[in-house]
Amino acid sequence: MQRKAKSRGLTVPLGFQAAGITAGIKPSGKPDMALIVADQPAVAAGVFTRNKVPGAPVIVSKRHIRSGMARAIVVNSGIANVATGQPGIDNAVAMTKRTAAAISCGFREVLPCSTGVIGVPLPMDKILPGIDQASVELARGARADDAAAHAIMTTDTVPKAAHRKLSLGGKTVHVGGTAKGSGMIAPNMATMFSFITTDVAITRNMLRSALQRAVNAPASFNRLSIDHDTSTSDCVIVLASGVAGNRQIKQEDNMYLEFVAVLTQVMQDLSYQLICDGEGTTRVFRVNVRGARSQRDADRVARTVVGSPLVKAAVHGSDPNWGRLAMAVGRSEAAVKPDKLSIAIGSIPVMQAGVNVDAPLKKLEKHMQRDEVLFEIDLGLGGAETEWLGSDLSREYVTINADYTT
Amino acid sequence: MQRKAKSRGLTVPLGFQAAGITAGIKPSGKPDMALIVADQPAVAAGVFTRNKVPGAPVIVSKRHIRSGMARAIVVNSGIANVATGQPGIDNAVAMTKRTAAAISCGFREVLPCSTGVIGVPLPMDKILPGIDQASVELARGARADDAAAHAIMTTDTVPKAAHRKLSLGGKTVHVGGTAKGSGMIAPNMATMFSFITTDVAITRNMLRSALQRAVNAPASFNRLSIDHDTSTSDCVIVLASGVAGNRQIKQEDNMYLEFVAVLTQVMQDLSYQLICDGEGTTRVFRVNVRGARSQRDADRVARTVVGSPLVKAAVHGSDPNWGRLAMAVGRSEAAVKPDKLSIAIGSIPVMQAGVNVDAPLKKLEKHMQRDEVLFEIDLGLGGAETEWLGSDLSREYVTINADYTT
Repeated sequence: MQRKAKSRGLTVPLGFQAAGITAGIKPSGKPDMALIVADQPAVAAGVFTRNKVPGAPVIVSKRHIRSGMARAIVVNSGIANVATGQPGIDNAVAMTKRTAAAISCGFREVLPCSTGVIGVPLPMDKILPGIDQASVELARGARADDAAAHAIMTTDTVPKAAHRKLSLGGKTVHVGGTAKGSGMIAPNMATMFSFITTDVAITRNMLRSALQRAVNAPASFNRLSIDHDTSTSDCVIVLASGVAGNRQIKQEDNMYLEFVAVLTQVMQDLSYQLICDGEGTTRVFRVNVRGARSQRDADRVARTVVGSPLVKAAVHGSDPNWGRLAMAVGRSEAAVKPDKLSIAIGSIPVMQAGVNVDAPLKKLEKHMQRDEVLFEIDLGLGGAETEWLGSDLSREYVTINADYTT
Repeated sequence: MQRKAKSRGLTVPLGFQAAGITAGIKPSGKPDMALIVADQPAVAAGVFTRNKVPGAPVIVSKRHIRSGMARAIVVNSGIANVATGQPGIDNAVAMTKRTAAAISCGFREVLPCSTGVIGVPLPMDKILPGIDQASVELARGARADDAAAHAIMTTDTVPKAAHRKLSLGGKTVHVGGTAKGSGMIAPNMATMFSFITTDVAITRNMLRSALQRAVNAPASFNRLSIDHDTSTSDCVIVLASGVAGNRQIKQEDNMYLEFVAVLTQVMQDLSYQLICDGEGTTRVFRVNVRGARSQRDADRVARTVVGSPLVKAAVHGSDPNWGRLAMAVGRSEAAVKPDKLSIAIGSIPVMQAGVNVDAPLKKLEKHMQRDEVLFEIDLGLGGAETEWLGSDLSREYVTINADYTT
């Protein structure tokens, strides 16, 4: 579907620089390396893929971020450094050492991220000079959000970015960031990345907690699926410079909640950009589940619906085939009682208490032709609810993924 | 892919009749009702969908089959009688009563099955005369396996059937049957059906046990996935007439095991026909998992691999993209250790102990161009193994499912 390129985000918060360059990793000659650097050591938190075959950069970044502090994120696209054994780990560490040398910090303060083809070694003869090149840009004071957003792209068609501000005790706090990934919730080429910066002053523990809340919010990173495949390299990293000068957030007070709300908004904005740029996506849909017995059940239902090939194909064809929604709800692992189940499409009820409602087909079809379709599912069993984002299944998705290189 | 129509099966075992007719349920005017009738009450066993929003016929058939005896299966295609509330249940019961009247038995000896669109009431003004018409065929001594196999089809492109015989204590025993379903493991239009007949003499309990073993065998009905969606109407029903005259199977002895082996062969044969006729299928693949810590883990891995849109698209494009296999293994819920994981494509190792093997790309590509592709995954953690069947994801699949009617 129509997508807008967005690029301003990473350096909107104070205390950060960003650069994106072409190191020559991608055969296409497109930008393929980015550096995101904090002027001073920043408070850092990250969430990483739960895939049990994680890439080497994930292993190294998880190790480095444990301290709760970081100076830089070094990213390459084109090759994911996954299934590469000990040499892959060594290469990821080498990326952090070269970055550390270039910006004068400890290598454990650098978080490496790689996305692209699996099972191929990184071309270190291009990566290491690429790091040097990017750091030269930084030395010139680069705030190249646009170049960085481009350099992390794989099958994405447009760069993605978002930013917001808020006032905390009279101080202006900024949150900005970028994201990539257009197949999978954790994409196709093996990755969903998001890098978020903020100038808020916050403790490590509270930043970790805020990140968890924000990624798990409705329609945020953990609540979307393009093709249900979970990559070996996914990560969301937040760096907080503290430069905004607000009274440091140390506990779950109002300041914390206000910050979480804005962090969540930025992630939801980026998530929406991701789903709209899903591989072959022509239309997106929201799945609103309520009345679930537990949060887990609500998510199970929504996840199954957004992942169902038949639902996705129906969305593609603008077919108000709610039978497929009922089928997907029924095959989820959630507690479901058919005679309590109600479903609406675009707020028009189609099934109530398990039985077909004679809904006006023309109106349903009209709604299904929109760029964004809404499915509402009420399990009628409890008070838990959630919202997920999904994308349609198109011929173009097949074309992209059947012909992607090995 | 190239499919062969097969139709001889249902009446190969002694003691059964079959008919297929056009009742006018399908707008296309194609055959849409079948009757499968045992001359005398037969021992009966069935497995049904675990979908929590099951169709009315599933509810009624499960109730009726509890006795372990049945005379007939009455089937319609075109409309699934799902999400139809109490009137739907009443209609399913009405189908059994009309059939019972026509063949002179109790209505609880009749098992109803419906497949097709969800949420639409059955046109009883066509269904009931259709039952009469089919029973007239039976009265003429119909052994119309071909007509019955056609009448249960929905998006299937060819009828499916299989039969085998074996010798038990000097007596010849036959097993035959038919199946339908071309989207979903439990299809697209809402159903995978298989109806199996046999003239073996066997107790109810042993038939139930044999059915469980056979549906769960490698590459059998519970080990295949076309699109990972589980229908609201799936079922596999076996009727045993006992006419073969073998000493009745009453326990897990050699006779039982020989019967199970042949029943399994028939189901594997039908499963293979189903997967080859999957919606838009151009190529099928086998996923062989070994070295799993438990049977459950082996199945989790195989199920995730056959269900992965990225793996399916790679198979479609003949792309030996084993990174996607590693990704799918890693996102399954099974115990996986990257440094124990080995993967082969067409018996050519591509990943060993978690690391890329430099496999000859030309040979891999050649294998990936076959009609049937083989993926072997060794988790290196235990002794459990399994085999699943999958089909590729094609543009044609999207076309079929985006444009299917509501």
